[in-house]
Amino acid sequence: MGKRVKEFNEFRRRMNERILAEDNRVIKRVFSVDTLTYQDGALPTKTKELLGLTAPMVLRCDDCAPYHIGQCVENGSSREKIMEAMSIALVVGDTNVIPHLRHAVAFLDELTSAMPAE
Amino acid sequence: MGKRVKEFNEFRRRMNERILAEDNRVIKRVFSVDTLTYQDGALPTKTKELLGLTAPMVLRCDDCAPYHIGQCVENGSSREKIMEAMSIALVVGDTNVIPHLRHAVAFLDELTSAMPAE
Amino acid sequence: MGKRVKEFNEFRRRMNERILAEDNRVIKRVFSVDTLTYQDGALPTKTKELLGLTAPMVLRCDDCAPYHIGQCVENGSSREKIMEAMSIALVVGDTNVIPHLRHAVAFLDELTSAMPAE
Amino acid sequence: MGKRVKEFNEFRRRMNERILAEDNRVIKRVFSVDTLTYQDGALPTKTKELLGLTAPMVLRCDDCAPYHIGQCVENGSSREKIMEAMSIALVVGDTNVIPHLRHAVAFLDELTSAMPAE
Amino acid sequence: MGKRVKEFNEFRRRMNERILAEDNRVIKRVFSVDTLTYQDGALPTKTKELLGLTAPMVLRCDDCAPYHIGQCVENGSSREKIMEAMSIALVVGDTNVIPHLRHAVAFLDELTSAMPAE
Amino acid sequence: MGKRVKEFNEFRRRMNERILAEDNRVIKRVFSVDTLTYQDGALPTKTKELLGLTAPMVLRCDDCAPYHIGQCVENGSSREKIMEAMSIALVVGDTNVIPHLRHAVAFLDELTSAMPAE
Repeated sequence: MGKRVKEFNEFRRRMNERILAEDNRVIKRVFSVDTLTYQDGALPTKTKELLGLTAPMVLRCDDCAPYHIGQCVENGSSREKIMEAMSIALVVGDTNVIPHLRHAVAFLDELTSAMPAE
Repeated sequence: MGKRVKEFNEFRRRMNERILAEDNRVIKRVFSVDTLTYQDGALPTKTKELLGLTAPMVLRCDDCAPYHIGQCVENGSSREKIMEAMSIALVVGDTNVIPHLRHAVAFLDELTSAMPAE
Repeated sequence: MGKRVKEFNEFRRRMNERILAEDNRVIKRVFSVDTLTYQDGALPTKTKELLGLTAPMVLRCDDCAPYHIGQCVENGSSREKIMEAMSIALVVGDTNVIPHLRHAVAFLDELTSAMPAE
Repeated sequence: MGKRVKEFNEFRRRMNERILAEDNRVIKRVFSVDTLTYQDGALPTKTKELLGLTAPMVLRCDDCAPYHIGQCVENGSSREKIMEAMSIALVVGDTNVIPHLRHAVAFLDELTSAMPAE
Repeated sequence: MGKRVKEFNEFRRRMNERILAEDNRVIKRVFSVDTLTYQDGALPTKTKELLGLTAPMVLRCDDCAPYHIGQCVENGSSREKIMEAMSIALVVGDTNVIPHLRHAVAFLDELTSAMPAE
Repeated sequence: MGKRVKEFNEFRRRMNERILAEDNRVIKRVFSVDTLTYQDGALPTKTKELLGLTAPMVLRCDDCAPYHIGQCVENGSSREKIMEAMSIALVVGDTNVIPHLRHAVAFLDELTSAMPAE
C-alpha cells in the first residue's frame, strides 16, 4: 500500500478522534448518521458505496472520493464498476471533475498496487 | 400523470429540440455522451440511473433529479430504493438538499399517482 | 402576511410530513439533527439562526434562506442585523448571490409587511 | 419582447431599488464593483460580457445568465458567439448545466423574437 | 505557533501584496469591500467573524476557513463557540464538509497550541 | 520554468495517459469533447481560453485554472487581459475565489518568470 493511502488514512483517523472528543452533540450525530447511511437496506452496501463515491466526486471533494473508493474495493466492486461510477460523476459534473478523476485514479492505483507507489 | 410532470417533460422536449437545432458541435456531443453514459456496462442501467439521480441531487438541481427519478421508475427501481438513493444525496449534501428532496418527492408522488396531482 | 410566505410555508409543511412518513431512518435522523443544531448552546439560537441564514445563501438556496429569515425575525433579529448577515453572504459568494438576495428581500418584505404583498 | 423577459427585468429593477435603499454600505459597494467590472479595459466590454455569461452558467444561476445574455446581445455578440460561450459553460460544468441551457435558450429566443413568446 | 499556520499566513501575505500590485481596479475594490464587511455595525465584528467562518466552510474552502478561525480567536470567541459555528456549516453542507472540518480543527489546534505542531 | 509548473504538467500528463488507457468510452468521449471545445469557431481560441479560465475559477478549481492560464499565455493573451478575466471570476464568485486567485497568480508568475520559482 502506497504512501499516499497510508498518510490519508492516518490523518483521517487522527482528526476524527480529535473531532469526536469535542463536546458537540451535533457533530457527533452527523458522524453517526454517516455510518448508518451505508448499511444494507433496500439497496445493498455495495451499491450504496458506488452512490457514495459518485456524489462527492461531482462536488469535487478530493478527500471523500478516496475514502469511498476504498469502501467500494472492500465491498467487492471491480475496477470497471468503479470507473463506470466515476464516469457518471464526470458526465454530471464534466471537465471540472477531470482533475479530481486524476487524483482518484492515482489513489485507486496505489490501493490496488496496479502501479508502484510514487 | 400530474400537471407538473407533463409540463416538465414538455418544456424539456421542446427546448432539447431547439438546442439541438443550433449549429454547435460541442453541445450536440455533450448531449450524445449523456445518452451513452447510462447504457448497460459493468454496471446495469438500473444502477447507473440511481447514480444519475444521486449526483445531481447533491448539486441541488431541481431539473436533473426529476428526470432521473423518471428513469429509475422506468428501469424498475422501487420507491424504497429511490428513497435510499436520495437519502445518500441528503447525507452527502445535507440540509441544503432538503428543499430539493421536497420537490423530488412531490414529483415522485405525481409520477406514481400516490397522491392526487395538485 | 403575503401570498408568497403562505404558499412557501404550506408546501414546506406538507412535503416534510410526506417525507417523514417514508420508512427511511437516515432521512428522519438528518431532519432531527437539523432541529438540534439551532438550540441554545455556547452560541444562543439568535446567533445560530444568523449563521443558518448566511450559510445557505452562499450556496444560493432560495428555499433555505426564506426559512431562516423567518427564524431570525422570530428570534428578534432586527432588519439591519439580517441585512448585515446577508451582506456577508454577498461578499463571500458575491454577485452570483445577488439574485438570491432579491428573492430574500422580497420575502423579508412580505414577512414584515414593509411592502404590500404582490 | 416576451412576457418572461419583461417580468424578469421588472422584478430585477424593483428589487435592486429596494436593496439599494437599505442602509448597508457593503451591499452598495458590491453592486458598484459589479458595474465597474464590465467596463472597457484590456478586454473590451463585448468580451467581458461573454465571460460574464459563462461564469454564472457553470454556477447554474438562472437569473445571472439571462441578464448577461441581454448584455451580450446589446453589445453586438451574434447568436453563434453566445451559443459558443454557453457551450464552454456546458463543457466545464456539463450535463447539470443542460437544464439551465434550456432556460437560457428560451430566454434568448424571446429576447431576439426568434420564436413567438409563450 | 505551528508550521502550518506560519506557512499559511506567509503565502497569504506574499500573494496579497503581489495581487494588489497589479493594475486592476476591480480586484483592489473587492479586497477593500472584504475589509469593510467585518467592521462593527448592527452586528459586532465578533459575530460577523463567526458568520465569515460558517459561510466559506459550506463552500468547502480550506483557505478561507483557517483565516476566519484566526479572526474568531483574535476577537475572543471560545473554542466551544467556534465548534458550534462549524457544526452549523456541517449540518448545512453535511458530510462533504467533514474533510474540511478535519483541516479546520487541525489548524485551530495549532493556533491554540492544544496539540504539538506536526 | 518553475518547479510547480513542471510538477503540475507532469502529474497531469501521466494521469491523463493512465485514465485514457482504461476501457471506458464515456470518459474518452468527455476528454475528446474537451479538446473540440476550444477550437476556433465563431469565437477564436484566444477568447475561448479566457472563457475557459473564468469558468473553472468561479468553481474554484486549482487544477483547471493553471491549465487555462497556460493556454491563455500560449494563445497570446497579455497579463493584463488574464488579470481582467480573473477579476470577472472574482466578482462573480467573490471573496471565496481570492485563495484561488493567489494560487493562480503564483502559477502565472512562475510561468512567465516574473518572479524566481520558489
